[in-house]
Amino acid sequence: MALKAAPAGARVVGYDADPARALEAASRGIVDEFAPDPAAAVANADVVVVATPVDETPGICRAIAAAVDDGGVVTDVGSVKTAVVRAGERWLPGRFVGGHPMAGSERAGPGAARGDMFQGAWWILTPTSTTGSKAYERVVRLVESLGATPLAIDPEVHDDLVGRLSHLPQLVASALVDIAVGGAGRRELLPLAGPGFRDTTRIADSQPTMWRAIFEANKSAVATELAALQRRLGEVQEMLAEGRWGELEEFLRGARSARLELFARRTEEGAALVLTVVVPDRPGALAEVTRAAGERAINIEDLEITHSPEGRVGALRLVVTGQERADLLAQALSNLHYEVTVEPAEEAG
Amino acid sequence: MALKAAPAGARVVGYDADPARALEAASRGIVDEFAPDPAAAVANADVVVVATPVDETPGICRAIAAAVDDGGVVTDVGSVKTAVVRAGERWLPGRFVGGHPMAGSERAGPGAARGDMFQGAWWILTPTSTTGSKAYERVVRLVESLGATPLAIDPEVHDDLVGRLSHLPQLVASALVDIAVGGAGRRELLPLAGPGFRDTTRIADSQPTMWRAIFEANKSAVATELAALQRRLGEVQEMLAEGRWGELEEFLRGARSARLELFARRTEEGAALVLTVVVPDRPGALAEVTRAAGERAINIEDLEITHSPEGRVGALRLVVTGQERADLLAQALSNLHYEVTVEPAEEAG
Repeated sequence: MALKAAPAGARVVGYDADPARALEAASRGIVDEFAPDPAAAVANADVVVVATPVDETPGICRAIAAAVDDGGVVTDVGSVKTAVVRAGERWLPGRFVGGHPMAGSERAGPGAARGDMFQGAWWILTPTSTTGSKAYERVVRLVESLGATPLAIDPEVHDDLVGRLSHLPQLVASALVDIAVGGAGRRELLPLAGPGFRDTTRIADSQPTMWRAIFEANKSAVATELAALQRRLGEVQEMLAEGRWGELEEFLRGARSARLELFARRTEEGAALVLTVVVPDRPGALAEVTRAAGERAINIEDLEITHSPEGRVGALRLVVTGQERADLLAQALSNLHYEVTVEPAEEAG
Repeated sequence: MALKAAPAGARVVGYDADPARALEAASRGIVDEFAPDPAAAVANADVVVVATPVDETPGICRAIAAAVDDGGVVTDVGSVKTAVVRAGERWLPGRFVGGHPMAGSERAGPGAARGDMFQGAWWILTPTSTTGSKAYERVVRLVESLGATPLAIDPEVHDDLVGRLSHLPQLVASALVDIAVGGAGRRELLPLAGPGFRDTTRIADSQPTMWRAIFEANKSAVATELAALQRRLGEVQEMLAEGRWGELEEFLRGARSARLELFARRTEEGAALVLTVVVPDRPGALAEVTRAAGERAINIEDLEITHSPEGRVGALRLVVTGQERADLLAQALSNLHYEVTVEPAEEAG
């Protein structure tokens, strides 16, 4: 829906393992056409988007590899990246770019589709040293056309991050429901639950099969975060038992400030600055530079590559806003042994 | 705001310990008039609503006791009831009715006020054997005039319930934020958090002082629920460690079904039935009967008391919907040694 609503428009060819869902998607105008199998669906596609549970993605990449056009690019939208990217790069070397839009809901299927779901959302991309520059650029353009902001991060950094920000809350939401309904008797009173309980447990409505695959693929990060949460809850339990109310209040106050700060709108964007980076014309250089920005949550407002005549060295022109962010990124790139200059956009021309 | 918007209207006299908030409430038209102290505010009031952190409520009840009109009734909106009701009944015997609207948000102050906040919400009341029938009825009318549905529950049953449905999620939301920001480095990536994290942790924005008082007042129920959650998370941790994915999926599936069932709209209300209950004309009988309904989440659609000429025995006429609910309530009242008859509303006249 978002693709078809985008200014450039798009012809969307779909495949779904479930014919009923395919029919529903077609009848709602989400896709223009359905193909009888994955390989047929991807033929002639500029960009292929694999949107399956994460344990299915490697098999799909393998199944479509021969059918993807020479110039075609493949991306995915799965919640775990390390394993998926490894498989994608195996079957589609240079042409697979891992992706994960930070948007969505607990609902599933064409009935839950919304054309504006990605507007203003971050969309993590996980290019690696083997990702082709053109493939990466094409996926960036796709993401931007949906109204989202692409941000490049290392696949493992991504998996640790979502273990903490997404997978742990998912387990906790399910456990809270489990505790709520599992207590002795009084089950008939549960509908009294107020808005706090509803919000806190909303994601427990998500698809169990999809989440099982996510936990399996990101097992070690999830286990680490779960252990950290259990330790923290144990500490809170002690504060309760020992009546350390001042400390409990500090715990609540700290979490409150942290969350308010987390979601405070960044109003001060600052002036635009141009970083010019000399890059060797080899696979992975673009990915390395954009990941350095992504991992500092620095949005690249604009990006241009110019190649030297002999084709061995190029210049990357990156636009970011705010002197502080520009300096931070320049320093990070210097540490990676890139030659960098920073200047105000109006002077850079 | 809800009181002033109610069909019957109301003249609202307020008191706030913080003059700036009082001024803001007055300028937004939330109150008609501010009094210089609590005692002055309650003089001549039909109903007094105490809305303070729960540790302040006992002191307020004491401070206003002498100033409340003979016919005046006092209620509160605190999240913990046993301790508050005990204090309220001590200072205002027969005239204090504990209350807890299952509505609200993490925001505080007059700026967060909304006139429609209680529309369609449950509003728990905790009458006891010493609550006066007239006092209880007046608070019921107040609650109904705000668009909420009153439900009578024993104070201790209430506290166990909110320990599980509200206080535990509150601690968990704060702990999730704490884990998210406390991890090694990568703090700059936290704004990437998607809608699941935002919802799950939304209530961590609530007032720390208010919540400290709630945890202090409901310490034992909260400790019990926190221990149950830690046990459950420990079990989930083992499933992850041992790769028991089928079991993990079952856990997720169980929580999902339970939550969907919990919040499924009850479409089948069923026909109206009248229960006629013979009650001795003594304090507490009305409370006992309505609590029997409340604790089974049976809404009393209508209620009427008729007294016998000699004034020693009365008949209570309760309207509920659905044969099953009517039979359940009749059985519960029989078990409490009340004489009960059930008949369809159209025949009862």
